[in-house]
Amino acid sequence: MKFFDCKTAPSARLVRMFIAEKDLDIETIEIDLRSGAHLQADFKEKNPHCTVPVLETETGLHLTSSQGCWRYLEAHKPSAPLLGTNPEEKGLIADRIWRIDLDGFYAIAEAIRNELPGFRGRALTGSINYDQIPELAQRGAARTAHFLDTFEAHLLGENDYVAGANFSAADIMAFVTIEFAGWIKLELPPSAERAHDWYKRIKARPSAAL
Amino acid sequence: MKFFDCKTAPSARLVRMFIAEKDLDIETIEIDLRSGAHLQADFKEKNPHCTVPVLETETGLHLTSSQGCWRYLEAHKPSAPLLGTNPEEKGLIADRIWRIDLDGFYAIAEAIRNELPGFRGRALTGSINYDQIPELAQRGAARTAHFLDTFEAHLLGENDYVAGANFSAADIMAFVTIEFAGWIKLELPPSAERAHDWYKRIKARPSAAL
Repeated sequence: MKFFDCKTAPSARLVRMFIAEKDLDIETIEIDLRSGAHLQADFKEKNPHCTVPVLETETGLHLTSSQGCWRYLEAHKPSAPLLGTNPEEKGLIADRIWRIDLDGFYAIAEAIRNELPGFRGRALTGSINYDQIPELAQRGAARTAHFLDTFEAHLLGENDYVAGANFSAADIMAFVTIEFAGWIKLELPPSAERAHDWYKRIKARPSAAL
Repeated sequence: MKFFDCKTAPSARLVRMFIAEKDLDIETIEIDLRSGAHLQADFKEKNPHCTVPVLETETGLHLTSSQGCWRYLEAHKPSAPLLGTNPEEKGLIADRIWRIDLDGFYAIAEAIRNELPGFRGRALTGSINYDQIPELAQRGAARTAHFLDTFEAHLLGENDYVAGANFSAADIMAFVTIEFAGWIKLELPPSAERAHDWYKRIKARPSAAL
């Protein structure tokens, strides 16, 4: 198995943390996005979408999303379970992951890629160059603020973790997303005390240092 | 169990088809999006994000995304399997679903909701009103065209189904997305013969009539 990573990419960090929580030892290849390694022909053969993460399985299959990598690794090494062990857990974890990905992670990416000069002409990941849309950067920031403001009420609730009593991949998704929001200087509101306690608990895990 | 559906919403159709393929009989409640039933307090209590689909489980948990509903239902009734039975299948199906959702389904929604007069001030689903961004409608249509143009090469490949030799939820995601693209009059290119054959095979399934 091979893991194509990029230390600075939150998308790849989702898989890096998952691998660490599974205590798996996987050969890791660093893809330097800044020098455009992901747009070169040899990488494009592995992933036509030109993004990290990519996981190459033992049979040579290339999985090119955090979700594909997570599902493969969960089935490959079921312990510790990160995607749930019964219908309710499995459903709620998947639900939270999808919601945080769309309303949090994707909104932050919109805010960043449509504003920072370094992403001019590269407002979306992938093989096609799209121009920045300044209004979309503003909307992305507004959506991110709403995501952070409602995180405690809508996603954490009365639970210790994002999908209930146990740590799961939904916590990885939420933690990486909230640290990603720091790139545009947005954070959990000070009043969200339970959310801050949760954040500190995740931050203390060894996988969070990766 | 209760399924909150809307006959005209592609997001809900994803779950409707999945339920039919599982041969499950679930009490279904129609939510009339046109009259704003999803924005009323009683529905918002079930789903603060004000969207369909919603699945209410037997313990009263509310799952508010196709992904949450699918994972719950797959664990609740494992046959026929729609999310894979071994690590490679599970990984690839999840990978395809995520990709089609983001590059296809979401791009089409961007194109539609940022252009049609009926969505003025409602460019995103949810409880917050966002203005339309005309440039985003154009970008959404361009992304949709790229998705359809590369569907055969990137997603179907040499396989009979989107994630390999067997029908899976990735086919549901692709089929519903391709029919959704019809709303903006975009379709698979005539040259994509294998993709058209695949489409006809899915269209012939009883679940596709729902």
